[in-house]
Amino acid sequence: MKTFRYPEEHEWKEIVERPLADPSAIQKKVRKILEKVKEKGDRAVAKYTARFDEVELDSIQVTDEEIKEGIDLVPDELKNAIRQAATNIETFHRFQLQQTDWVVTMPGIMCSRKMVPIEKVGLYIPGGSAPLFSTILMLGIPARIAGCREVILCTPPGAGGEMHPAILFAADLVGIKKIFKVGGVQAIAAMAFGTETIPRVYKIFGPGNQYVTEAKQLIQEMGIAIDMPAGPSEICILADESAEPSFVASDLLSQAEHGVDSQAILITTSERVFQGCLNELKELIKELPRKEIAERALDNGYVVLVKNLEEGIKLVNEYAPEHLIIACEDCDRLADKIVNAGSIFLGNYSPESVGDYASGTNHTLPTNGFAKMYSGLSVDSFVKKITYQKLSREWLKNIAGTVIAMAEAEGLQAHAQAVRVRFS
Amino acid sequence: MKTFRYPEEHEWKEIVERPLADPSAIQKKVRKILEKVKEKGDRAVAKYTARFDEVELDSIQVTDEEIKEGIDLVPDELKNAIRQAATNIETFHRFQLQQTDWVVTMPGIMCSRKMVPIEKVGLYIPGGSAPLFSTILMLGIPARIAGCREVILCTPPGAGGEMHPAILFAADLVGIKKIFKVGGVQAIAAMAFGTETIPRVYKIFGPGNQYVTEAKQLIQEMGIAIDMPAGPSEICILADESAEPSFVASDLLSQAEHGVDSQAILITTSERVFQGCLNELKELIKELPRKEIAERALDNGYVVLVKNLEEGIKLVNEYAPEHLIIACEDCDRLADKIVNAGSIFLGNYSPESVGDYASGTNHTLPTNGFAKMYSGLSVDSFVKKITYQKLSREWLKNIAGTVIAMAEAEGLQAHAQAVRVRFS
Repeated sequence: MKTFRYPEEHEWKEIVERPLADPSAIQKKVRKILEKVKEKGDRAVAKYTARFDEVELDSIQVTDEEIKEGIDLVPDELKNAIRQAATNIETFHRFQLQQTDWVVTMPGIMCSRKMVPIEKVGLYIPGGSAPLFSTILMLGIPARIAGCREVILCTPPGAGGEMHPAILFAADLVGIKKIFKVGGVQAIAAMAFGTETIPRVYKIFGPGNQYVTEAKQLIQEMGIAIDMPAGPSEICILADESAEPSFVASDLLSQAEHGVDSQAILITTSERVFQGCLNELKELIKELPRKEIAERALDNGYVVLVKNLEEGIKLVNEYAPEHLIIACEDCDRLADKIVNAGSIFLGNYSPESVGDYASGTNHTLPTNGFAKMYSGLSVDSFVKKITYQKLSREWLKNIAGTVIAMAEAEGLQAHAQAVRVRFS
Repeated sequence: MKTFRYPEEHEWKEIVERPLADPSAIQKKVRKILEKVKEKGDRAVAKYTARFDEVELDSIQVTDEEIKEGIDLVPDELKNAIRQAATNIETFHRFQLQQTDWVVTMPGIMCSRKMVPIEKVGLYIPGGSAPLFSTILMLGIPARIAGCREVILCTPPGAGGEMHPAILFAADLVGIKKIFKVGGVQAIAAMAFGTETIPRVYKIFGPGNQYVTEAKQLIQEMGIAIDMPAGPSEICILADESAEPSFVASDLLSQAEHGVDSQAILITTSERVFQGCLNELKELIKELPRKEIAERALDNGYVVLVKNLEEGIKLVNEYAPEHLIIACEDCDRLADKIVNAGSIFLGNYSPESVGDYASGTNHTLPTNGFAKMYSGLSVDSFVKKITYQKLSREWLKNIAGTVIAMAEAEGLQAHAQAVRVRFS
């Protein structure tokens, strides 16, 4: 890891800036796949599945039998763990449902706002080295709480066309009925445009590699909503003298093992934690199966020694991390000063991995500095909020003068006429 | 207007499909302006202002004196109207602030979510034929309620470099301190990248022409957030026998006068309303100063006679209008069946223009069918929600097994290690 000792503020730029992703190299390729799937539907999907996943499937929709068989294969211990995580996620996200309240803005003008589920949503779960069934909980549970009518799931098939049992178990647990063995850009395209087999949806959720990310960006321009812009996963730890170097090092590693482009940063006021963490990293990394990935990721990471916690907070807010652990004595008070972060982990016994799986908060969070303006995923992401207003004849009269004066000043006479005609 | 009598469902496509905007023709031009402003800052802004607004300014920031002078020029009646509207908007939007609640997901696991204002936001108000000071209220009031630290406003200067007094009054009323005389793509670029004079912001709000819309789309790809994708404004009216043809016609006209690409649709079960509305339109349009715009907009509009209200509701949900007036006896019950709309106006005395200005709801709403997956603007749009979790050593123990089982099943050993290390 790169180290900084008491950097001046003008040196922060190097720390807070993310590597710039340039999608132009892959854009043409991604656009072609989108167009082909739009045009040829299932046939194009089958072609790309054969090419990229190297498997030919008779049917892309997972059958009830496959689901049942998959569920039987999941060990009971893992089932119980997933159930426990699901319960916690459900408990936390239920609180995000909002009542519809009627607000009387003036005597006689009633206004309200109501959460209404997005009717059709598509979830994407990447394949690759890890079967991310936890992400199914994070996407599927808020979708169910929101009340989305149609929730579909796409995920790439394994080498033999099979699905990971835990993926099927998690999908079943959250009530997803339609699962398709389709991955990559072709999955995003199929959900955006619809095919003979895969229904078109209004909004697409879920992580993916740079091709999937670019596909989501492009379909967003075409009028399909996406959860949020994506970038590599990140952790930032703010630590004072009370922090334990081995905890800090293991939290950095839990981020670093995600991928070679993951970002891990430690900001500390303690020389002991600074040095101790560097030493612990060397030891702890040895035991990891994903050691090489983690090593490469740590090469892009930083350990920063700062003068005091005020400066640390300021640097955190500039960086706007996806995950922030505050491993400080006074973590609650410090958390109040954080304005830019996706999710915050308070104290020495709240590791990021607990939020990744089971505390109840959502693990789909803004990366790449997007925590400055985007929220993590929640029930909000699966609804839109419709507003309502109701006036009677008499009530409209109370506000008529205001509307007419403003409409005329804006040069919009028909707006004024629409009020006047009701009293002529 | 084009008329349909009892169309079959397969004929709905023509009604619900919006004209496709193709930005490719202007994309190159817009991209060039973005790049130049990014590179050359204020100098590029001045150049484009001279070219497009045909005015050369000594200073682009509106001075305190200009604001004071402008406010003095606004007639008292208009001031009072704007104040009344602002009060109603404030009253309605205040209810959108959410408390932070701690949720105990398991004995000992505390989670919460808190609204935190986006620090820096930019508001854009177009110039052109109408000074849209009402939009300043709609953007500025939720920004103030959210607590955004820096709120800036860009709007194009008039021919002599002046600003419309009502714009200055409205901006002052909602507490906006920094107003810049910059319009078009150069304004969006300046707020996205920052110049010597105009601060960089994290999220940009506000309506605009196709160039501004395309600029917002492009800066979104570069990592700056925008309020929502935009399209021409729309109204849909669902009317039964209880509706008054002259009211319906005047509401369609209030939409049609916005621009030649505005969409106005009437769906009715009543032959009387169907025919009456067509007749009234011919009469009412005669009196309008913006008659030619309204006429051209109505050419793209539809009057649709449907068999019953069930079918009407279904067609409305397919169309997903920005504004929906339910001019029906049973409007409340029918409103419950609407799942896709931006804002709903209930009954015969709730014209759209009352929501455009003064009922209290926000008039920045999803167009172009985006009501299927996007909400209108609200306090939510000016905040992000940060999540928190806190566990103690003992509490972490309760969930350790769950986290470790899931992490290992996903092949992420460092995630499991981050929990284990805390108990070794």
